[in-house]
Amino acid sequence: MPRHLIDWHLIDDATWERLIERALHHFHATNRWSTVAAKRSVGLLFFNPSLRTRTSMELAAVQLGAHASTLNVGQGTWGFSWEKGKVMDGAEAEHIDEAVGVLSRYYDALGVRVFASLTDAQKDRDETLLHTFIQASTVPVINLESAFYHPCQALGDAATMMTHFNGDVRRKKFVLTWCYHPKALPMAVPNSALLTASRLGMDVTLACPPAYVLDKKITDLAAGYARQHGASFDIVHDQAAGCEGADIIYAKAWSGPAVYAGADQEAALRAENRDWRVTPGIMDRTHNGRFMHCLPVRRNIVVDDAVLDSPASIHLQQAEFRLHAQKAILEHVWGLGV
Amino acid sequence: MPRHLIDWHLIDDATWERLIERALHHFHATNRWSTVAAKRSVGLLFFNPSLRTRTSMELAAVQLGAHASTLNVGQGTWGFSWEKGKVMDGAEAEHIDEAVGVLSRYYDALGVRVFASLTDAQKDRDETLLHTFIQASTVPVINLESAFYHPCQALGDAATMMTHFNGDVRRKKFVLTWCYHPKALPMAVPNSALLTASRLGMDVTLACPPAYVLDKKITDLAAGYARQHGASFDIVHDQAAGCEGADIIYAKAWSGPAVYAGADQEAALRAENRDWRVTPGIMDRTHNGRFMHCLPVRRNIVVDDAVLDSPASIHLQQAEFRLHAQKAILEHVWGLGV
Amino acid sequence: MPRHLIDWHLIDDATWERLIERALHHFHATNRWSTVAAKRSVGLLFFNPSLRTRTSMELAAVQLGAHASTLNVGQGTWGFSWEKGKVMDGAEAEHIDEAVGVLSRYYDALGVRVFASLTDAQKDRDETLLHTFIQASTVPVINLESAFYHPCQALGDAATMMTHFNGDVRRKKFVLTWCYHPKALPMAVPNSALLTASRLGMDVTLACPPAYVLDKKITDLAAGYARQHGASFDIVHDQAAGCEGADIIYAKAWSGPAVYAGADQEAALRAENRDWRVTPGIMDRTHNGRFMHCLPVRRNIVVDDAVLDSPASIHLQQAEFRLHAQKAILEHVWGLGV
Repeated sequence: MPRHLIDWHLIDDATWERLIERALHHFHATNRWSTVAAKRSVGLLFFNPSLRTRTSMELAAVQLGAHASTLNVGQGTWGFSWEKGKVMDGAEAEHIDEAVGVLSRYYDALGVRVFASLTDAQKDRDETLLHTFIQASTVPVINLESAFYHPCQALGDAATMMTHFNGDVRRKKFVLTWCYHPKALPMAVPNSALLTASRLGMDVTLACPPAYVLDKKITDLAAGYARQHGASFDIVHDQAAGCEGADIIYAKAWSGPAVYAGADQEAALRAENRDWRVTPGIMDRTHNGRFMHCLPVRRNIVVDDAVLDSPASIHLQQAEFRLHAQKAILEHVWGLGV
Repeated sequence: MPRHLIDWHLIDDATWERLIERALHHFHATNRWSTVAAKRSVGLLFFNPSLRTRTSMELAAVQLGAHASTLNVGQGTWGFSWEKGKVMDGAEAEHIDEAVGVLSRYYDALGVRVFASLTDAQKDRDETLLHTFIQASTVPVINLESAFYHPCQALGDAATMMTHFNGDVRRKKFVLTWCYHPKALPMAVPNSALLTASRLGMDVTLACPPAYVLDKKITDLAAGYARQHGASFDIVHDQAAGCEGADIIYAKAWSGPAVYAGADQEAALRAENRDWRVTPGIMDRTHNGRFMHCLPVRRNIVVDDAVLDSPASIHLQQAEFRLHAQKAILEHVWGLGV
Repeated sequence: MPRHLIDWHLIDDATWERLIERALHHFHATNRWSTVAAKRSVGLLFFNPSLRTRTSMELAAVQLGAHASTLNVGQGTWGFSWEKGKVMDGAEAEHIDEAVGVLSRYYDALGVRVFASLTDAQKDRDETLLHTFIQASTVPVINLESAFYHPCQALGDAATMMTHFNGDVRRKKFVLTWCYHPKALPMAVPNSALLTASRLGMDVTLACPPAYVLDKKITDLAAGYARQHGASFDIVHDQAAGCEGADIIYAKAWSGPAVYAGADQEAALRAENRDWRVTPGIMDRTHNGRFMHCLPVRRNIVVDDAVLDSPASIHLQQAEFRLHAQKAILEHVWGLGV
């Protein structure tokens, strides 16, 4: 059984701590380049757009001495069918079982980005596409953002906050605040951010309009981590009040479970909450808080220029940590010792 | 004159045997990585989609120590004009002569995939586009599938069968069976498969509806190889009967020469033969036969899940051999000793 | 302040001479490969198509031991917003400030191709997009063709002519001749070619219809260089007369400042000058002249086959020099000693 990296919260505690430690190691390393993963290769399949993940994963591999290939599915490749038992008389020329089966024989690991459908709640919640992919693979699979989780982002975020608070993140106030966005976006990043902060023992507040509370599976997990650490987990529906005294404001737009009832209804709900945006006024209420966002971010919609361009915003360092985190992940899936 | 790899059957016997031997060597090597082709580069130009060829060729180069660049023509590059004497006042910004002339000065070899037109029989049969490309190149050109041939696939297939039969492929029964497909597909793979099997001295049967017999140039060559080896070459129009006692069932859909008379007529002909599909019933008639397909394959249209997911199907090993075969081809065109 | 390579004519004389010298060094090197730039990486962002620039820059980096990533913006990446203060409620998901800010933390240099708008004269003339990009970068930026300049082409062209004339280019007659083209093209290449030839001390003639004289900023600079070298700079509106006695015919189509008054008007103006084309008759009037073009070139529209396919055309060597020139540029921006 290959050592996949699928859902961040499923990793055992020892591995979780070691991954954070290794991400920090790579951040502090004076030389970013080594040959620890020489004679290895990773194939990165993107079913959705990417800037950071693609470039940081490619460089993470290359700087460890490995080779990385990026495949933008549908651009110069065949389209894939995912369904079991499918009579393939449609547009797709190849089944994912063959695609992954073949690539497993070429590469030493595969990365895959396959976003949520936002139309089929069960399929998204069960990570059906990701698991179909994994079942066909004989080499480790790294989740580069699936329907419900974004573990590469999660590890980068954890290491960013460990660095910012000099390793002492417990009971710091972490606010995940929903923001308005013109499009319905998936929930992988907010799910992962919530689980990461609570697992780190932070006091976590989820601030969002009532219709945008994340899946119960996620909030239950977060509440459980909070109990385990003697930390708090709250859900509030007033953005400004929720951000009061925060050490970290983590902003993100997402469509929420409402999207599965119908895109139009969710769009109407969303439009009612246009004022959910991180402004200097919000930041003033924090405890000298730092602003985080996974990027890409829409300026002056999700967050004001005055926040993003201020020293309070650590979004670029957060993005840089993707590189360091993914080196740790590659070492992990390949079982590379220190 | 650079050492191109164009049409598989045009290679002399000594080279053919050496290429198979080297492909098998790479398959058996405990270490896939070397530096034998260090300080060399190959540029791969795809005018048509690719998954296996692109990734396996890139890795073949990289694992030999070379650099590979992949160019999906029309995606971030200019469109090309191919015609001699053309007054270029249309959509194409560059002539293939300049494109290849320039790339020849950057790369140490070029690969090119340029499919059949399926509208101009003479042009396809004469490999006009491929030869235009080759004439403009001052470095070796590797055919990554042209109108009529797919030599990389052919070498991979030869090595797969040599491995499966422990080197003793002579007089094994090889059936190339036509299958139904919702689209009109080119003939490069079936042409190459037929020539490969017959050149290996296998007893070859081409099973297809009457309208789908391959070009006479190909069947004549296959018949000639058969005579040379004292083996048989037959054409039959009953799929089940043709597969009787087969050691290898090689399935493939193709449009056949009928397509040049008109796409609609060929589509109608094709629709009459929807039942040409490799089923468990077909496999039951074989002599413990193995199933092969070049991929991508449409499940439950070309072949049933029950065949493809059974141990009788060696399609993934066949795909893996592309990597080993293409290392042999790169060594060949670059004249690299063992 | 990182050492960018932006506008070719802004480079000081010592750097200019050293860059040419290094480009020639790479051309004459018996071994194209070194490790002088090992443990470095360059990210290449293309907002417009590319064949030569992409492949030659990738190989330039790789042959120096560095890693290069190519990103075709909008193909598998997010679209970018460039405007300061923008309320990002449109199609673009990310601001260029974040994109460049992040990539600066991954790569050791960035290359960017962003063509002229041909609709906003001020923005093009001021290189607004390029400067927005540069301001967001903390690493050196290499201009891979901007609205007004193409310094990589310029250095390649300079080295090509130095080679052709054995280092003695002063007072050779260089004719930049406008040619007809079915599309309105940017002016980066003719601007750069004019500045390069005049800075080299060549006698420069700009031959073009009256409406196609380049921007005054450019012709003033060219005239200044000519004075400095005691060379000539002329503008003529008769193609054949202008080419009389030329040592170099540098052909290029461009839209001219007229395009900013309206695309339709410029197209009408252009159509009146369909006969501006480099023919054997034009070449006969030269002083055993050589033909140059940056490519891509439209055959039999910009230049006749009989010229391009003759020994007088050095366009392929010119394209090859892109590789050598860009190695010199990478060494420069990274401050690599010899």
